Amino acid sequence: MTSRDVTRPICIIGLGLIGGSLLRDLAAHGHAVYGFNRSTSGTRKATKEGFEVSNDLVETLRRAEADGALIVLAVPMPAVAGLLDALAEHAPSCGFTDVVSVKAEVYALVKERGMEDRYVGGHPMAGTAESGWSASRAGLFRRAAWVITFDHAVDTEGEVPQEWIELWTDVVRMIIITGAEAIPARVDRHDAAVARISHLPHILAETLAVVGDNGGALAQSLAAGSFRDATRVASTEPELVRAMCETNAPALLTALDEALELLQDARASLASETSDLSELVDAGYRSRVRFDAREGNRSESVSPVKISSRPVLRLHPGGEGWVNQLIQAESLGGRIEVF
Amino acid sequence: MTSRDVTRPICIIGLGLIGGSLLRDLAAHGHAVYGFNRSTSGTRKATKEGFEVSNDLVETLRRAEADGALIVLAVPMPAVAGLLDALAEHAPSCGFTDVVSVKAEVYALVKERGMEDRYVGGHPMAGTAESGWSASRAGLFRRAAWVITFDHAVDTEGEVPQEWIELWTDVVRMIIITGAEAIPARVDRHDAAVARISHLPHILAETLAVVGDNGGALAQSLAAGSFRDATRVASTEPELVRAMCETNAPALLTALDEALELLQDARASLASETSDLSELVDAGYRSRVRFDAREGNRSESVSPVKISSRPVLRLHPGGEGWVNQLIQAESLGGRIEVF
Repeated sequence: MTSRDVTRPICIIGLGLIGGSLLRDLAAHGHAVYGFNRSTSGTRKATKEGFEVSNDLVETLRRAEADGALIVLAVPMPAVAGLLDALAEHAPSCGFTDVVSVKAEVYALVKERGMEDRYVGGHPMAGTAESGWSASRAGLFRRAAWVITFDHAVDTEGEVPQEWIELWTDVVRMIIITGAEAIPARVDRHDAAVARISHLPHILAETLAVVGDNGGALAQSLAAGSFRDATRVASTEPELVRAMCETNAPALLTALDEALELLQDARASLASETSDLSELVDAGYRSRVRFDAREGNRSESVSPVKISSRPVLRLHPGGEGWVNQLIQAESLGGRIEVF
Repeated sequence: MTSRDVTRPICIIGLGLIGGSLLRDLAAHGHAVYGFNRSTSGTRKATKEGFEVSNDLVETLRRAEADGALIVLAVPMPAVAGLLDALAEHAPSCGFTDVVSVKAEVYALVKERGMEDRYVGGHPMAGTAESGWSASRAGLFRRAAWVITFDHAVDTEGEVPQEWIELWTDVVRMIIITGAEAIPARVDRHDAAVARISHLPHILAETLAVVGDNGGALAQSLAAGSFRDATRVASTEPELVRAMCETNAPALLTALDEALELLQDARASLASETSDLSELVDAGYRSRVRFDAREGNRSESVSPVKISSRPVLRLHPGGEGWVNQLIQAESLGGRIEVF
């Protein structure tokens, strides 16, 4: 084991697109990993492929408790509360992380149960419109942002237990094994950011899909690439979209209100004698150009050596000023490496 | 010459992405075609590639007049009025069409000048964020919708001149040569449809780009595929976006107001105690699924034999009931073939 290896086995609860892909990456890396899947058919398929997967939650949690595993909750938001109770009962000393796309609500449930000392929030920014074990694949997280929260270190003003620091470091290492980039962000900052770049796009796509459909057969016949791209995420399962957006209502409201103000201004201009959309259109163009520039090598480069466009900060967890380094990385959207 | 051939030479004014690609397709088909380009460098490049391209507008229009060409106005909206005046002076008997993305304003300029008898509106639904001769390419229009207007036939209640019917038929044949599908639509129906599926997507993309950018470095770092796809058209030149949207203000207002109502409802629900986005999300999902189903073979099929998903209507221009057939095709978003 090198200093870069996760120091404990990993137990994944929920083997859908995210959990299943994580299982594949960790197993391919040679790390001890096993999991639980609710679906019998998914369990059977995964087992056939040679993975250690059980259909029995209690047994899986007990095994995690016995070998001091890091538990990954890879279930949708509605399943989290019940799973935390199961953890409290069957794996009371394991550290755990999650992959839910909204962090405040998960953290509230964790705090209600007094489990902050053994929890580190996570959110891999990867996924497709598909779901389930059969959609999982190795390499899903390569070059993706994987948010890791650190509120507990800030809230305890540096007096965070050493066990938590070790847990946090293991989660970073797990992220890096998958090829993802570990981006530190506090719960509220994360939720505010994803409201803008993930949840608002869903709301706008649903809206556009409806307005286009209202145009009937002629409008649909004329729709081309821009309509298809702009409504793509409207084909996501409605339950998933609702779970994300409704759970993040306060942050999404802020983003939606900004959008509504821009759209109302555009509306007023279009309704006036001399419509002039230059303010919105110029601002949108500049914003998109900045996005392209920032994204840079991340997706556009044709160079065979992909260099991340995210700034990197190397830090020693628990070391002098490390929490301030995390806050600095957060403000830059930077990735971290630990030593 | 077969019955499917355009009965006259074609003269294209403006050799940017659309005009240039049309020139390439017609020349590849062996049809007599020449054009005018304002840019000296574009003219030089096109000439080097063996195309008949002039830098002299008056000379080009006089040549069109001399050989009875079909003139295609492939210029942006702001250049149309001046060009119509030049046509009136230097090519007073030529029939013409255009490729501008909004049809009401062009038709108003045509009617102001009493040129309805020799005009048929057109709009190919193809394009990229690039522009200019260097962006043009053969095959750009393959399988694209190319709208052809027929208001003059409706307005004259079937008493439309035979010359106009022949002109209209030639425009259909020209469209079919490019591999595009000719979709008949009246000016106002066209403008209402493109407001929904082309102009509103631009407005929403600009808005989303700004709101995402407002989230600063963290939000931009976390932005992934859904944000990139949803803001893609915000990278279009601002002047082009403004020209489309501002010129189509009344129809765009209708579409934007529908969007605003849906977004306001979503906002109200998010702000309430028990946020429930099911109405919007379910409707958006259903709309997008319908769009996919309609688009069907048009873009998703992996079959080597591409079959259009648009219904086809075969008609004889000027024949009994042909205008009603056009109205029927319009309501279906159908493509037409002429015999």
